[in-house]
Amino acid sequence: MEYAVILAGGWGERLWPMSTRRRPKQLLRLGSGSTLVGETVARVAPLVDIGKSLVLTNAALRERVVPELRGVRRERVIGEPFGRNTAPAVALAAHLLVGDDRDAVMVVLPADHLIEGDEPFRAAIRLAAEAARATRSLVTLGVRPTRPETEYGYIRVGRASGPDGVFEVEEFVEKPDRTTAESYLVDGNYLWNSGMFVWRADRFLEEIARHLPDVASALADVGSRPGDAAFPDELLSFYERVPSISVDYGIMEKADGILVVPAAFRWDDVGAWSALARVWPADDKGNAVSGDAVLVDAERCVVWAEDGVVAVLGLSDVVVARAGGATLVCPLGRARDVRAIVEELKRRGYLEGA
Amino acid sequence: MEYAVILAGGWGERLWPMSTRRRPKQLLRLGSGSTLVGETVARVAPLVDIGKSLVLTNAALRERVVPELRGVRRERVIGEPFGRNTAPAVALAAHLLVGDDRDAVMVVLPADHLIEGDEPFRAAIRLAAEAARATRSLVTLGVRPTRPETEYGYIRVGRASGPDGVFEVEEFVEKPDRTTAESYLVDGNYLWNSGMFVWRADRFLEEIARHLPDVASALADVGSRPGDAAFPDELLSFYERVPSISVDYGIMEKADGILVVPAAFRWDDVGAWSALARVWPADDKGNAVSGDAVLVDAERCVVWAEDGVVAVLGLSDVVVARAGGATLVCPLGRARDVRAIVEELKRRGYLEGA
Repeated sequence: MEYAVILAGGWGERLWPMSTRRRPKQLLRLGSGSTLVGETVARVAPLVDIGKSLVLTNAALRERVVPELRGVRRERVIGEPFGRNTAPAVALAAHLLVGDDRDAVMVVLPADHLIEGDEPFRAAIRLAAEAARATRSLVTLGVRPTRPETEYGYIRVGRASGPDGVFEVEEFVEKPDRTTAESYLVDGNYLWNSGMFVWRADRFLEEIARHLPDVASALADVGSRPGDAAFPDELLSFYERVPSISVDYGIMEKADGILVVPAAFRWDDVGAWSALARVWPADDKGNAVSGDAVLVDAERCVVWAEDGVVAVLGLSDVVVARAGGATLVCPLGRARDVRAIVEELKRRGYLEGA
Repeated sequence: MEYAVILAGGWGERLWPMSTRRRPKQLLRLGSGSTLVGETVARVAPLVDIGKSLVLTNAALRERVVPELRGVRRERVIGEPFGRNTAPAVALAAHLLVGDDRDAVMVVLPADHLIEGDEPFRAAIRLAAEAARATRSLVTLGVRPTRPETEYGYIRVGRASGPDGVFEVEEFVEKPDRTTAESYLVDGNYLWNSGMFVWRADRFLEEIARHLPDVASALADVGSRPGDAAFPDELLSFYERVPSISVDYGIMEKADGILVVPAAFRWDDVGAWSALARVWPADDKGNAVSGDAVLVDAERCVVWAEDGVVAVLGLSDVVVARAGGATLVCPLGRARDVRAIVEELKRRGYLEGA
């Protein structure tokens, strides 16, 4: 059987102040009327045993996340006591799933991405699951690039392998510069690394044992199940013992024989304010506006006005965001650096509540 | 005797959202700890009969202005039912003063300018009053320019006339372009037109009768005094009858034999956000900041953060202002156009309360 593993940690700090620790990106309604995490669950639900699927989020958010997850059992929404990036979370999920179902296939999905086109998404997931069963390989989803994006990692696609439409991964490539990204787009053999994975839980645990033995040994001491009285304590000591490391860095860049399913749905990780210019409808001057805003002589601005009216005069390619009692102004070209200002705000004590 | 006539109408809309209709510029504490109108009264008080001096403000603000005016009698704070620019207000003040004192000399001062240096200010006013008595001329104060400002009108100074340090006005000049302003600065014979005037009340009424007969005839029907039961009705019908016109345009550009006292105190009309960059202390990157703000890679910005923290990343020469539930972002070079955005905000219904 297939099970979803939804990764709903972090808070999308580069979307501050729209996104905050108390109201993280995955709980925002950026696409449809639903939260990103809710959309993620609804999109995958028809393909998996949703009741036994797992959602990992931070403990402080758990009660806020639960109502968004139609069909997922409350005890299977796991509140991480602290963030340790994705590899330990996915390993823990694999460990729990394999305990229920030795042949479990897990569909690992970030909870904070925008996807348009449920059917192409589901077709890609079905194909990836078929390949994961047939070949016992780790399978990743690659999204066909539509622009020379420098904020995503890329996958270089190799030979066909396994079922029709499945290929070998030749290489994972770090975020490229603009010229390189343009060459990838022309080349046609590069896909965006979406962070969506499909694999047998037991096979992933083999990779964990090989590449992240600290995580494997911490897992060995998790003997209880979600809902058991002992689970919270075991969860805490697991997170205390594991290193903070991503699936991409800890496993994917090291494992052999990884396959990729190229997918053609519209996908955006909405990683920074600049993404909202793509996601929101723009006016005739290219301004993407949400809320009460008045723009005069403004072009290609992204404005989030949640907290009183926002007036922008005579500026182009600028983000102006007002939410939760805070204001951010920066050029769209610096949107990736919002994290730096969040760090400075924390240091100066302005973000206690964020 | 001398009497102050303080012009405290308007609301400084180019400083929106710091300045609003409910909290206009003259009630802001931009310089010392005192409001601009309070500073204006305190600065002139030693030179005049402050008790019988007059303050003209809009009716809705009257009760808010009164506590700021130490020494001015409550009934002599006149609430204008609607704004009609400065000429009718000054004419009314002249009419009221000459009724008390046929030899009244009026010191006309805008309530929303910043002045540094009370003693040079008072010396200039004393000299202007001496000239106004000795020559019966209209006397204006001109401020020595310290930069090629394009937002002020200028006065071209002529021959010495009257007491030492007093000169004929050769010409009033409209706001110049940058090149012209630079030539004025080099020339040395041009002063900023400060909007501060000193003259005998009866002499000003002669000019009103000559150049603004509609105002003169409306004045003829004001027979009561401030504090009289009939005064409010007479005030209303006066304002209903008079045209909206400035002293500069209605009188100064038409009258003959105007004198000017060049003054060397630091003066700023704080007409727009760009002025705050001059008025507030700047950090080592030239940022003038008031309130809780975090600036990263920002230069020569003006930030007013009254309403939650304001974060500015990677921008230069920009105004970011947050106050009273509204946010403004614009380049400093467009600060003079904030009025345009205020008009648009009104049109769209966002400024009911401003």
